[in-house]
Amino acid sequence: MEFTAQQIADLLQGIVEGNPGEKVSKLSKIEEGSPGSLTFLANPAYTHYIYNTEASVVITNRDFQAEKPVRATLVRVENAYQSFAKLLDVYNTIRRNKTGIEQPSFMDPSAHAGVEIYLGAFSYVGKNVKLGDRVKIYPNSYIGDNCVIGNDTTLFPGVKVYSDCIIGNNVTLHAGVVIGGDGFGFQPNDGNYQKVAQIGNVIIEDHVEIGANSTIDRATLGSSIIRKGVKLDNLIQVAHNVEIGENTVIAAQTGIAGSTKIGKNCMIGGQVGIVGHLQIADGVKIAAQSGVGSSITRSGEILQGSPAFNISDYKRTYVLFRKLPELEKKISDLQKTLSELRSASS
Amino acid sequence: MEFTAQQIADLLQGIVEGNPGEKVSKLSKIEEGSPGSLTFLANPAYTHYIYNTEASVVITNRDFQAEKPVRATLVRVENAYQSFAKLLDVYNTIRRNKTGIEQPSFMDPSAHAGVEIYLGAFSYVGKNVKLGDRVKIYPNSYIGDNCVIGNDTTLFPGVKVYSDCIIGNNVTLHAGVVIGGDGFGFQPNDGNYQKVAQIGNVIIEDHVEIGANSTIDRATLGSSIIRKGVKLDNLIQVAHNVEIGENTVIAAQTGIAGSTKIGKNCMIGGQVGIVGHLQIADGVKIAAQSGVGSSITRSGEILQGSPAFNISDYKRTYVLFRKLPELEKKISDLQKTLSELRSASS
Amino acid sequence: MEFTAQQIADLLQGIVEGNPGEKVSKLSKIEEGSPGSLTFLANPAYTHYIYNTEASVVITNRDFQAEKPVRATLVRVENAYQSFAKLLDVYNTIRRNKTGIEQPSFMDPSAHAGVEIYLGAFSYVGKNVKLGDRVKIYPNSYIGDNCVIGNDTTLFPGVKVYSDCIIGNNVTLHAGVVIGGDGFGFQPNDGNYQKVAQIGNVIIEDHVEIGANSTIDRATLGSSIIRKGVKLDNLIQVAHNVEIGENTVIAAQTGIAGSTKIGKNCMIGGQVGIVGHLQIADGVKIAAQSGVGSSITRSGEILQGSPAFNISDYKRTYVLFRKLPELEKKISDLQKTLSELRSASS
Repeated sequence: MEFTAQQIADLLQGIVEGNPGEKVSKLSKIEEGSPGSLTFLANPAYTHYIYNTEASVVITNRDFQAEKPVRATLVRVENAYQSFAKLLDVYNTIRRNKTGIEQPSFMDPSAHAGVEIYLGAFSYVGKNVKLGDRVKIYPNSYIGDNCVIGNDTTLFPGVKVYSDCIIGNNVTLHAGVVIGGDGFGFQPNDGNYQKVAQIGNVIIEDHVEIGANSTIDRATLGSSIIRKGVKLDNLIQVAHNVEIGENTVIAAQTGIAGSTKIGKNCMIGGQVGIVGHLQIADGVKIAAQSGVGSSITRSGEILQGSPAFNISDYKRTYVLFRKLPELEKKISDLQKTLSELRSASS
Repeated sequence: MEFTAQQIADLLQGIVEGNPGEKVSKLSKIEEGSPGSLTFLANPAYTHYIYNTEASVVITNRDFQAEKPVRATLVRVENAYQSFAKLLDVYNTIRRNKTGIEQPSFMDPSAHAGVEIYLGAFSYVGKNVKLGDRVKIYPNSYIGDNCVIGNDTTLFPGVKVYSDCIIGNNVTLHAGVVIGGDGFGFQPNDGNYQKVAQIGNVIIEDHVEIGANSTIDRATLGSSIIRKGVKLDNLIQVAHNVEIGENTVIAAQTGIAGSTKIGKNCMIGGQVGIVGHLQIADGVKIAAQSGVGSSITRSGEILQGSPAFNISDYKRTYVLFRKLPELEKKISDLQKTLSELRSASS
Repeated sequence: MEFTAQQIADLLQGIVEGNPGEKVSKLSKIEEGSPGSLTFLANPAYTHYIYNTEASVVITNRDFQAEKPVRATLVRVENAYQSFAKLLDVYNTIRRNKTGIEQPSFMDPSAHAGVEIYLGAFSYVGKNVKLGDRVKIYPNSYIGDNCVIGNDTTLFPGVKVYSDCIIGNNVTLHAGVVIGGDGFGFQPNDGNYQKVAQIGNVIIEDHVEIGANSTIDRATLGSSIIRKGVKLDNLIQVAHNVEIGENTVIAAQTGIAGSTKIGKNCMIGGQVGIVGHLQIADGVKIAAQSGVGSSITRSGEILQGSPAFNISDYKRTYVLFRKLPELEKKISDLQKTLSELRSASS
């Protein structure tokens, strides 16, 4: 794909300064620009790069004022960062615009697919599955019986969706994600464990994105639910009957135990553990590696630690934890002084 | 699948109270019952739901005494929870009762399979593999050369078993599980690392269940062993030459380093880390997010912390950790008082 | 495969002591030797096993002096451990020496492959992919468009490589590894999140090994880079734009957040978390379960804790953490004594 500075300006409603015919065929960071690349300048801390960049075209804010000569052609726009993000998005959409049914693939005759889908080779679509329009299923993916997948949803290679799960529109599941595996339910029984059958499902609402190799277990009964707009990073574990509220964002390797309900607009760091059967209020933030052992009822609370408590208290306490040798020294000094004083006064 | 209240009562050796011909076609929680659904009441805390539930049939304990009129048909049994679990199990078994060889799939001519197996499309069975009776291998799974898989074992989609591994009867491996990847063994060698070949295998005994995307590495020499009845949750890491004793249960995202031996009937929480070359006694319990850095010799010990120690001590200590600002205040008050006293007495 | 003691001695430039025609067909640990097995004695702590081992042939150091009769045939070599490791390696190479194209597999006509490759059934090779010589791609793997894979590189089953990634020579990717998934980049936008397209790639240099189900995200722009000789264990998360320096070794379940640069020759334990946008100096060691929240500028620093600090300080501090109840007792004793003293002196 090759574009001229003028074509880019037209797309972004910007103004060219320099050679409108300047051609670009790739995107780069400003500090890594090379001939033929298009980049952007939004963060003032990176301004010095614009004078030496080898990129051919740079998108800048409308009000950018050069203090030295700039060799590259500029495209001035209202908001350079957003314009560049838009370009990335267009580029990505074109790059990933696959359609058609590759062979061999497996679609049960009872399954139904919408228009313009992509079904990669070695992908499996089970009985009674319903695929929406423009669904993209990359190779080596598996969709179990009775699943429903909404419009414009993408499953990257090797995604596995167990039977009976429901996935909304505009959802992205990255490679290796497992949706609907059995919840971890066993009953003690004479010294060993008997499995509790997990016959619920997983419901994933619209605009959810789930990172590579994350696992979302099906409910014992009912549904594990990932609400609209939730973003999960890689290698996250979501246990049976969990519910994650709208627009909550969770970083990699976090685990949420069974039946916990997480509110909307929460931000949860990486490697956090949350025990089962809790309620986490809306807008809660949890620092990386924290362990949450009890419900959080106050919206917007920010926590850290394992077990976690208020983050400012945690930070203050951790400073003292690091000073424990000093505190111990003070205590023994006190003991000594006091003992001397007692001797003196006796 | 549709059943009448009478058919369910016959299956569970229960007694119908209400309409024996009442039909149900799905299972639900009592608080989510709807017309046509079957549910149960076992936990007294949920008793109030029975008077309003829209479920058509409710399984209750034989001695349940209604204090208000109940609209639903009841099936009274000895133990409502166990009866319902039994129904779930029957339902699940029927739902997952797949057999036959889907095409395309790959089975090396030297492989041997028992009766009534299911081999999903795009599954791969290598040289000299032996599959027992009623083995179910879902699509996109891989079984390397010389593996042996026992009767009634299920591999969900995308399971990968490297060569030479041995898997018992009634084992369940969930989607994305990797059995027998190389142990992490490298020797420093002139500033870089030389791989130590990992030529052992993994042995998984009967009635083991392993959750989605967990990884069990093969031994360097000999075997990594998962004993009978062990239950592992999702995203668990088991390193080379580890042995996990019978009926031990481990929650998600826990990692066990090389050559560690874990006893029988242990319960290990999520996100626990256990270092290599340790011995963990039988019946030990380890709280979530703990780090175990030395062997645990006392059976039944319960631990928490990183590094972990006795859980009661940990809890008591953590209370004081949270009080560190208060303790520091006390120390400086003591210093001040003592200093005043010394001035006064001098 | 069957060998005589003499053949093994010839391969290792060793000397036979006993029956040169003694046959072995498997490798074992000395404490688990059985007739027909070959083992070794390198660690003096295991010397007592040599007098009773049932192994047929034992490789020993040249200078080993038996204090009792040894039944097994010996092969004396310069360095028993290294010789045995060499044998393991030869054995493994033979065992994994697969070549040929299994069917069905999918290779886009625009893809190009070197000589003697192995392409397992149900593997997918996208447009314009370049595969080097002797590349081994096990079944159910996926290689997206425009990827380049060097010579002698092995992808075990179910590896997924997104488009545009570059993988060097002699690289090993274990089962379920995901290379090049989208980085976790979202912009707040009116209460929900808008995806930032991730159009960079992943570059993996020569001699890298990555463990099962680990995930390496592609860069937003530019490249996430895993340098030469890096060894990553299972279930590791590497976020977008991260760079890991040469010969750094990382244990299982560790996560590294976006844009962090890790130096050469670092050793990072399991379940460590490292936040984004940090610089970690060369030769740094980080204990398991630590959390690194700020850059580490001093080469060779060793850290522990969450947040992590100097490991000796951490260990000293953690001893005092465990003694907090004792310290609290001392403080209240001091308070009491001081209070008595004040009463007495007033």
